[in-house]
Amino acid sequence: MSEDAEQAAARPTITDVARHAGVSKGLVSFALNGRPGVSAETRARILASAEALGWTPSLRARSLSVDRSYALGLVIGRSVDVIAADPFFHAFIAGVESEFSTAGQVLVLAQATPGREEAATYRGLAADKRVDGVFLTDLRAGDDRIALVQELGLAAVTLGRPDVPSPFPSVSVDDGSGIRAAVEHLVALGHRRIAHVAGPSSMLHGRRRADAFVAAAIANGVEPVAVVETDFSAIDGARATRELIALGADRPTAIVYSNDLMALAGLGVAQRAGLRVPQDLSITGFDNTELGEHTFPSITTVATDATDWGARSARLLLAAIAKQPAENIDLPEPRLVVRESTATAPNAHPRGIDAAP
Amino acid sequence: MSEDAEQAAARPTITDVARHAGVSKGLVSFALNGRPGVSAETRARILASAEALGWTPSLRARSLSVDRSYALGLVIGRSVDVIAADPFFHAFIAGVESEFSTAGQVLVLAQATPGREEAATYRGLAADKRVDGVFLTDLRAGDDRIALVQELGLAAVTLGRPDVPSPFPSVSVDDGSGIRAAVEHLVALGHRRIAHVAGPSSMLHGRRRADAFVAAAIANGVEPVAVVETDFSAIDGARATRELIALGADRPTAIVYSNDLMALAGLGVAQRAGLRVPQDLSITGFDNTELGEHTFPSITTVATDATDWGARSARLLLAAIAKQPAENIDLPEPRLVVRESTATAPNAHPRGIDAAP
Repeated sequence: MSEDAEQAAARPTITDVARHAGVSKGLVSFALNGRPGVSAETRARILASAEALGWTPSLRARSLSVDRSYALGLVIGRSVDVIAADPFFHAFIAGVESEFSTAGQVLVLAQATPGREEAATYRGLAADKRVDGVFLTDLRAGDDRIALVQELGLAAVTLGRPDVPSPFPSVSVDDGSGIRAAVEHLVALGHRRIAHVAGPSSMLHGRRRADAFVAAAIANGVEPVAVVETDFSAIDGARATRELIALGADRPTAIVYSNDLMALAGLGVAQRAGLRVPQDLSITGFDNTELGEHTFPSITTVATDATDWGARSARLLLAAIAKQPAENIDLPEPRLVVRESTATAPNAHPRGIDAAP
Repeated sequence: MSEDAEQAAARPTITDVARHAGVSKGLVSFALNGRPGVSAETRARILASAEALGWTPSLRARSLSVDRSYALGLVIGRSVDVIAADPFFHAFIAGVESEFSTAGQVLVLAQATPGREEAATYRGLAADKRVDGVFLTDLRAGDDRIALVQELGLAAVTLGRPDVPSPFPSVSVDDGSGIRAAVEHLVALGHRRIAHVAGPSSMLHGRRRADAFVAAAIANGVEPVAVVETDFSAIDGARATRELIALGADRPTAIVYSNDLMALAGLGVAQRAGLRVPQDLSITGFDNTELGEHTFPSITTVATDATDWGARSARLLLAAIAKQPAENIDLPEPRLVVRESTATAPNAHPRGIDAAP
C-alpha cells in the first residue's frame, strides 16, 4: 500500500509524523521499526509525534513487504481454573501490552485445552503466520517446546532458563533468593520447624523454589518438616495446609508458600483450625499480590514485579524478531516484604538449645 | 493454497478428515465452517475426526478466499492493576478460548493504555484486519464504542445491554437479581442498616448493581446507609470499608460489595478494626471467586459463571460473523451462595419494632 493510499484512508502517515517531528521520513521509518542508527533523543521525539498524531502502523503494508505478522503469541498450558485465579499472568500480560503502545503489535493469546493440544497450537500459530514470536512460560523439566518452537522457525523468549539447550534468550528472576530470604527471616524469629507448600514439581520454577527451600533450611541448621506439592491453586493450598496442621504436635510453626494465593487460602485454613496467625503459625507468600496487603493479618511475601517482567520480555522478544542482539536478562533479586503474618516462634528459644545435651 | 499443497506441508487435510469420518469432503467443509445443512450427529463425528487427526484449518487459504482473519478481539480499557487483580477477565477469556478448540480461531488481546488510546486501538484492529469481531466488555453510560465498532464494520457482541441503540447482540446476566437476593438474605437475618460498596458509576454494571441495591433496600423497608463508589480494586474496597466503619454508632451492620475482591479486602479491614465477621458485621461479595471459599470466615457471595459467559459470547460472536441469526442471550439468574460471612444482625429484633411508637 502506498502512503498516498494510506492517506486516503484518513490515517496519519509516516510523512505526517516526519513533518511533525521535523525529521526525514527515512529516520521516522528507522525509529518506528526499532532499527539502530537513531539517537535516543530523536527516537523519543519521533515516538512522541507518532503518539500525538495517533499514528498506527499499516500492518498490511508492512506484512506484505516483510512477511511479518507484527504479533506476539502466548500459549498458556495450565488449566482454566488455575489461570483464572493466578494474578501473575494478568500482571505479566499487562506488562507485555505496555510495550505495544507505539509499535503496532498485538498479543495473540491461546489456551492449550484438552480440545486443543499444545503442540498443535504452536504449529497452527506458525503455519498461519499468526505470530512472529512467542513467550514460553511455566517452563517444564526437559521442555519439548524449546525444540518445537525452534523447528517452527519462530522467535521466542523463555521466562527463566530451561534445563535443556536453548537458542532463545531468557528473562529470569532468582526465585531461590526470595525463598532463602523467607527461610532466613523465619529462622531469625526462632522457627525450627518450617514446611513448604510447593508448586508442581513438573514446572521448573515450582521445583526451583522447593529446592531452594530445602537448601536454605539445611544451610540454617533447620530440618524441613515437609514439602507438600500442589498445582498452585487456592484449593490445593488449603488441602496442603490441612495436611500440615494434621501433624499435631509435629506440625510446623511456619509455612513458606510458593505463591500468595495459596498463602491466603492457608491463612483461612489455619484460622478456621483455631490457630492464631502469626502467634501460633507464621506464613509467607510469593508474588506480593494486592490482596495480601489488605487481609488481617497482612501477608509477609516475596515481591517480584510481574508487570516489569512482561515489559522486559516483550522488549527482548521484539529485539530478537528484529534480529538485534538479544542477551539473557536477570531481573533484580526479589525482596522480602515483611508484614504481619510472621512473628517470633511459639516457645522460641535461642538457636542451638535443641542441640544441647 | 490447494489441498495438495497443504498435504505437502504434512498437515492433515480436509480429505483426510473426510476419509476418517466416512463422509464427503463437501460435508466436512460445511461442518468445519459451521454452515447449516449438517446434522448435529454428523457434525460431531466430523469434529471428532478433525481432532483425532490433529487437523487445523489453513488460515492462509481461508483468509485469501473469504477475506477473514479468523480472530476475535478483546480490548480492555481498565487500568493494569485492576485487571491484574480481577479474576473475572481470566475466567471470561478461558471460556472464550474453550470455544476455539476446533474452529482455528485465536483471541487478540489489546489493552487500551495511556499510550494507546482506545478508539485508535479499535481502528487499528479493523484497518489491519486483525480481527473479524470484538467483545465489548465493561459497558459505559452512552458508550461511544457501539457507534465506533459499527462504523468500522466489525462484528461485535456486548456483555450486557448498552443504554444506547445497538445493532449488536448481547449476552447479559441480571446483576440486579443477585444484589436483591443478597439484600433480602440480610433483611431476613434482621439487618436494618445495610451499605453498598459499589463499582464505578461510569460502568453500567457497577451502576446497575448500585441501583438494584437501593431499590431492594427500599422495597424491604430498610434505609440504605450509604453507597460508596470505588474502581473495583482491593485497595479501594478497603478504603470504602474504613469510611463505613468510621461512621461509628451509625455504621452499617452489613455491607454488600460489588465484587469478591473488595469483600475480601473489606473482611481484612473489619477484622483489623476489631469487628468480628459475621457477629458484628455481615458482608457479601459478587463473583464467587475461588479464594472466597477458603477464607475464614468464608464469603457469602453472588455466583455468576464467567467462564460460561465467555463461551456463550464466543459462540454468539462467531455466529454473528458467519451472518447467522444472533439473538440476545440472557444467562441464568445468578444465585446467592450463603457461607459464613453473614449472620443474624447484632441486637436484631423482629421487623417493625423500629416503627413502633
